[in-house]
Amino acid sequence: MLRWLTAGESHGPALVGVLEGLPSGVSVTTDDLVAALARRRLGYGRGARMAFEQDEVTVLGGLRHGVSQGGPFALTIGNTEWPKWSTVMSADPVDPSLLKTTGRNAALTRPRPGHADLVGMQKHGFDEARPVLERASARETATRVALGAVAAKFLEQAAGVRLVSHTVSLGPVAVPDDAWAEVGLPHPDDVAALDADPLRCHHPATSARMVEEVDACHKEGDTLGGVVEVLAYGLPPGLGSHTHWDRRIDGRLAQALMGIQAIKGVEVGDGFETARRRGSAAHDEIEKGPDGVLRRRTARAGGTEGGMTTGEVLRVRAAMKPIATVPRALATVDVATGEATQAHHQRSDVCAVPASGVVAEAMVALVLADALLEKFGGDSVPETARNVRAYLDSIPELLR
Amino acid sequence: MLRWLTAGESHGPALVGVLEGLPSGVSVTTDDLVAALARRRLGYGRGARMAFEQDEVTVLGGLRHGVSQGGPFALTIGNTEWPKWSTVMSADPVDPSLLKTTGRNAALTRPRPGHADLVGMQKHGFDEARPVLERASARETATRVALGAVAAKFLEQAAGVRLVSHTVSLGPVAVPDDAWAEVGLPHPDDVAALDADPLRCHHPATSARMVEEVDACHKEGDTLGGVVEVLAYGLPPGLGSHTHWDRRIDGRLAQALMGIQAIKGVEVGDGFETARRRGSAAHDEIEKGPDGVLRRRTARAGGTEGGMTTGEVLRVRAAMKPIATVPRALATVDVATGEATQAHHQRSDVCAVPASGVVAEAMVALVLADALLEKFGGDSVPETARNVRAYLDSIPELLR
Amino acid sequence: MLRWLTAGESHGPALVGVLEGLPSGVSVTTDDLVAALARRRLGYGRGARMAFEQDEVTVLGGLRHGVSQGGPFALTIGNTEWPKWSTVMSADPVDPSLLKTTGRNAALTRPRPGHADLVGMQKHGFDEARPVLERASARETATRVALGAVAAKFLEQAAGVRLVSHTVSLGPVAVPDDAWAEVGLPHPDDVAALDADPLRCHHPATSARMVEEVDACHKEGDTLGGVVEVLAYGLPPGLGSHTHWDRRIDGRLAQALMGIQAIKGVEVGDGFETARRRGSAAHDEIEKGPDGVLRRRTARAGGTEGGMTTGEVLRVRAAMKPIATVPRALATVDVATGEATQAHHQRSDVCAVPASGVVAEAMVALVLADALLEKFGGDSVPETARNVRAYLDSIPELLR
Amino acid sequence: MLRWLTAGESHGPALVGVLEGLPSGVSVTTDDLVAALARRRLGYGRGARMAFEQDEVTVLGGLRHGVSQGGPFALTIGNTEWPKWSTVMSADPVDPSLLKTTGRNAALTRPRPGHADLVGMQKHGFDEARPVLERASARETATRVALGAVAAKFLEQAAGVRLVSHTVSLGPVAVPDDAWAEVGLPHPDDVAALDADPLRCHHPATSARMVEEVDACHKEGDTLGGVVEVLAYGLPPGLGSHTHWDRRIDGRLAQALMGIQAIKGVEVGDGFETARRRGSAAHDEIEKGPDGVLRRRTARAGGTEGGMTTGEVLRVRAAMKPIATVPRALATVDVATGEATQAHHQRSDVCAVPASGVVAEAMVALVLADALLEKFGGDSVPETARNVRAYLDSIPELLR
Repeated sequence: MLRWLTAGESHGPALVGVLEGLPSGVSVTTDDLVAALARRRLGYGRGARMAFEQDEVTVLGGLRHGVSQGGPFALTIGNTEWPKWSTVMSADPVDPSLLKTTGRNAALTRPRPGHADLVGMQKHGFDEARPVLERASARETATRVALGAVAAKFLEQAAGVRLVSHTVSLGPVAVPDDAWAEVGLPHPDDVAALDADPLRCHHPATSARMVEEVDACHKEGDTLGGVVEVLAYGLPPGLGSHTHWDRRIDGRLAQALMGIQAIKGVEVGDGFETARRRGSAAHDEIEKGPDGVLRRRTARAGGTEGGMTTGEVLRVRAAMKPIATVPRALATVDVATGEATQAHHQRSDVCAVPASGVVAEAMVALVLADALLEKFGGDSVPETARNVRAYLDSIPELLR
Repeated sequence: MLRWLTAGESHGPALVGVLEGLPSGVSVTTDDLVAALARRRLGYGRGARMAFEQDEVTVLGGLRHGVSQGGPFALTIGNTEWPKWSTVMSADPVDPSLLKTTGRNAALTRPRPGHADLVGMQKHGFDEARPVLERASARETATRVALGAVAAKFLEQAAGVRLVSHTVSLGPVAVPDDAWAEVGLPHPDDVAALDADPLRCHHPATSARMVEEVDACHKEGDTLGGVVEVLAYGLPPGLGSHTHWDRRIDGRLAQALMGIQAIKGVEVGDGFETARRRGSAAHDEIEKGPDGVLRRRTARAGGTEGGMTTGEVLRVRAAMKPIATVPRALATVDVATGEATQAHHQRSDVCAVPASGVVAEAMVALVLADALLEKFGGDSVPETARNVRAYLDSIPELLR
Repeated sequence: MLRWLTAGESHGPALVGVLEGLPSGVSVTTDDLVAALARRRLGYGRGARMAFEQDEVTVLGGLRHGVSQGGPFALTIGNTEWPKWSTVMSADPVDPSLLKTTGRNAALTRPRPGHADLVGMQKHGFDEARPVLERASARETATRVALGAVAAKFLEQAAGVRLVSHTVSLGPVAVPDDAWAEVGLPHPDDVAALDADPLRCHHPATSARMVEEVDACHKEGDTLGGVVEVLAYGLPPGLGSHTHWDRRIDGRLAQALMGIQAIKGVEVGDGFETARRRGSAAHDEIEKGPDGVLRRRTARAGGTEGGMTTGEVLRVRAAMKPIATVPRALATVDVATGEATQAHHQRSDVCAVPASGVVAEAMVALVLADALLEKFGGDSVPETARNVRAYLDSIPELLR
Repeated sequence: MLRWLTAGESHGPALVGVLEGLPSGVSVTTDDLVAALARRRLGYGRGARMAFEQDEVTVLGGLRHGVSQGGPFALTIGNTEWPKWSTVMSADPVDPSLLKTTGRNAALTRPRPGHADLVGMQKHGFDEARPVLERASARETATRVALGAVAAKFLEQAAGVRLVSHTVSLGPVAVPDDAWAEVGLPHPDDVAALDADPLRCHHPATSARMVEEVDACHKEGDTLGGVVEVLAYGLPPGLGSHTHWDRRIDGRLAQALMGIQAIKGVEVGDGFETARRRGSAAHDEIEKGPDGVLRRRTARAGGTEGGMTTGEVLRVRAAMKPIATVPRALATVDVATGEATQAHHQRSDVCAVPASGVVAEAMVALVLADALLEKFGGDSVPETARNVRAYLDSIPELLR
């Protein structure tokens, strides 16, 4: 069982992540985490914050000399803007007179539609939204990306599993169906190329159209959402289980993806499209390949059947709503006065879809690493790897 | 915390469900459960099995004189076909010679595409699919529906929350977008009318077209999937939480829905459609209603913001793939011989979409009941109800 | 991860147990469960109920032809006295006039000291103790024993682990310290002999004194408690973990034992006695045995170090308080009137200590099976067994 | 639900603790945490490390201006000795030549009896004990104490619950039974006085004898264990539950206490002594007090019945084994050579029993805070407090 907790506020001194249950023997360094976090800042259409939001990673537990030791992995991601916020976000009490004169401390009483602001205030009895938005902010996903990078290292080193994510659509601009035949699905070897694309899109022509859409949207003071896809290669068959609903790998992936800020839809394989097809054209027929090994003729199911990985490429999608902090501000009510007004807006990103692919990839890595440990156990990478190998070897020839 | 486990095989003596953590004081009877299970057998396009699959419900724990007592609720749902299966599915060893002569015991070595068969065999080292399909079968959802009915009673009695589900699309036939303005979203008071509709569809003209689609599909020996929607009315704001990914109500709902057999996609509110919109037209602006109470102008978000219920109507969707046991059988390989062949098929349903709405409703009820207890605690219905009421009363007037 | 839920009331139609997460391939039959439950009724000093409390075991899920199938295991244990209770304990509403005339339905308003009665009423808002005591009753442990028997089969078949339990003391009568040198610790091969002993005591002379103590106590209308010990042989080193508090095997065993009705103390190895020793005489020094294998010179730690099994014999103890339903009744207050009175008492057992050893054994089996799966994974007995074997083989010679 | 994870190694840069699920509105400051940690270093018989082991506390999440905000609480406890260890314990790879010349990096191949060393190496496949002891070290309990201090603040502010711990015995020196009548049980108001006592013992004469025992033991190069007790005042009745084994408060407390390093026994109330008594003298009879309120005549049960708090004072004990790093070193085997040798010993504490009381107090606070939230819910201190109050008020007069 792999458990992870994240902590920290958007403008606090640092984010904190702890990953408990990681076997020993995973090779990972601070540089790996820094690189993973840099990927999260990628993408055309991000505002100024991404530039100064540098990620100061410090590993505090679980690693020694670049190798995990079996105890919980822990890191902090420092906030380089902290000096500006140290009074407003101080953990300890501060002189009230200091706060009064600090603009940053002004009460946020105009809850933003599409954010946690209003409900968070109702739930906790807050009279302003600061305590809500500090934690609800997508800044928190930095921690997930860092922990996901560790999980991904474990997956690769213990089982040869590798991941890739990409942008499938941005607002109304989607990779055309017939383009997939042309470019194929992205492969983990394509990660560098995808990261170099402004939208992390696998189809250059569509990417160009996406750039135009961002530019148009920016001009109009509006924002964009989109759909990202995560693929995992090299999975053994049988992660997850058909025997109980909450062991199913598809359900666990769905929670992990829907649990990302701003995600409103999740699909496995062809997802909603599958629901429109007839049964004769909706499933993946089984045949023997030229190598004598069983394979599916198609990949509609996205690599799961009966709540388990099939050994085919896993493919899941997440739909992100447009950024809710819309420059042409949305209508709201000032809860200090009851007057109609416009929502605060604090940043100027047009879209965060390319980054959300990186976050989704991290969440998938964490879920798969947990499922790998569930099936194979192991207190060290060699032990898990040995159990994976022995399992694969034990499958009778006619069943492979 | 509400926990539930289900057990039992499709052709075993009975299904078993246990719901742990239910407060005392919930009024529910065996008749309520029987009625809930009858709803699960609804829908045009089901095969013969639904007729003889009668649900013999026996409550074994947790209830006394129609009221929950605080201990785990437990029930069995007997299999009326059990006498035919008592040898093949006997828990205890049987005379091998008996088994040899029983057709029902023939080894299932032609794994069905779209089912757990092949992966389940690989995972567990089985040489045939019987042990897999017996548990992977959607028959198991009967238990979920029964437990969900208990959860729904708790939600209604402790917090006035009521649910309704309906069929949004069947294969290519969907309720047209402009029809919603005409018929409105279904309300819990519409449950009886929906259950009386052949497809549990809220729009009569679409329902008629769905019947035609089923008929056409039946003739062609094919199967259908579709999309169902569940709505929950009367929820307090603040179930779930923005503070940690796995407390978010949207993620928990997503797992619960995706964890239903054959579900391949999940949406909250407008879901994937939201990803195609611009930010200025994607969120629910906040205003004061004529009664002076805050409200959202639209319902795009589906009643959640920041991973919490907003107090607006909750709305979630699940996409079901077509039934994988397709009469015009799919290609597979006989794993006993390695020969190409066609998959077994054992039943003749065209679609189970209307029923899947009932199952989805049950899963949503279980998740919401759990979230209600998480926020409000309570060992009895009066205690939970009192805590809910006091919370609602405590929200300052300007924040309501 | 192994999960288990129990349900059912003491005088309800049946107890229910579900064990989720059990691998396939475990050989177990209804007879095994009946035999396990018979052991729970053992022991001198039990009242009449044990005679008519026959356990009608029905396996409803998870087994086929005597072998587990990978899905949840489920059983019911019928209550042979049910016809007498079917009105009073009916799950569904009954005619109130029927209840009025039923003596068994009389309100239990004199809460018994040492029982859950009073607190349970306060917690749930009940005006009598029936709903509390029906679930709090130790009758519930029958389910644990049955599920524990399944876990024990898995432990033995996947890892060669075997358990034994015995009575260490009964009230003031304890096996003398010097007797252990004489008789040695019990071994799993001694189970039949222990079960044949009236008190399940490994030292015949002490057993005889215990019988006398029971007789004396019976005459005086009093009750007895005692201490039981569970031993597990054949454990691999490394179950549990030193890396996080709630993974420690000693803590998990402590919860499982303290979570048995009437248990007030738990020890691992020499427990409280260890706290009185000096460090130089409190630990188990390490040496090479004549076979060249590392071993501990002593067994004070009870087979755990750092929250992990060491591979030595695991030894844990539980202290049971005397039966709280004391024939010479205890003082209490009638909560219907506020008058001082005496507690109800409904049975006449002098002690249940021998049986509690059997229950403790079951709980230890469940915890160890869970820990075995955590370290070794496995969806089938052969897979888990293969992983255990490969791990043991991988320990370098100098570290064995 | 309250969840907490700790991370960090004994000689790493910092320990990390995260407490998830804490309601908003808890008042707590860094000073409170520093003060709590200072209590953990108390006690006669500690070695030099306690002097330089200063706890540099930094709160990184969950608090703002001295009040919790609803998100996860996170802190680090810096290691002031880190500069000496920064190479040996570097998270990232270091120049191997540097390591070769660092004495601190010498391989620890002589596993210490009574520690996790040997088993940890076997479990993880390590060739030396460093990675094991760094995490198994009791230094980790600093994090628990800090998180426990936060939980204790919540308990006091939401429900008026307060805790106190003390040393009951040290090696063979115990507070005599008849002394309790003289001094009474300690009360939360006695915390300062207890902390000022060299052994945190409530009975001065016994404390003096304990000092002598420490001195004698120190001279002889030996170590001591002992027994500590934690009491909680002001608990409402009904925390925990009789309805399922793993909800019982006694079991959860037992795991939490046994899960502390070096604890080998746990008791609730009179524990093992209860098992020696007759039933007529083992339970707490119920009567009406002069104020007309129900009360127990005695406090043998330690404030729990049926796995629930009774509202009486909660009282639990933990038995700590003597420090396993014994100056007159224990026999072991060098696993690099197979030669018999003596165990490493790195510090010179005689006993850590007084500190273990502080750790036990923290673990009890965490368990009780979790149980309080389970019964009463609440996203803020006022909400939980309101629910507690309404529950207490709802108990009928005759049941109070």
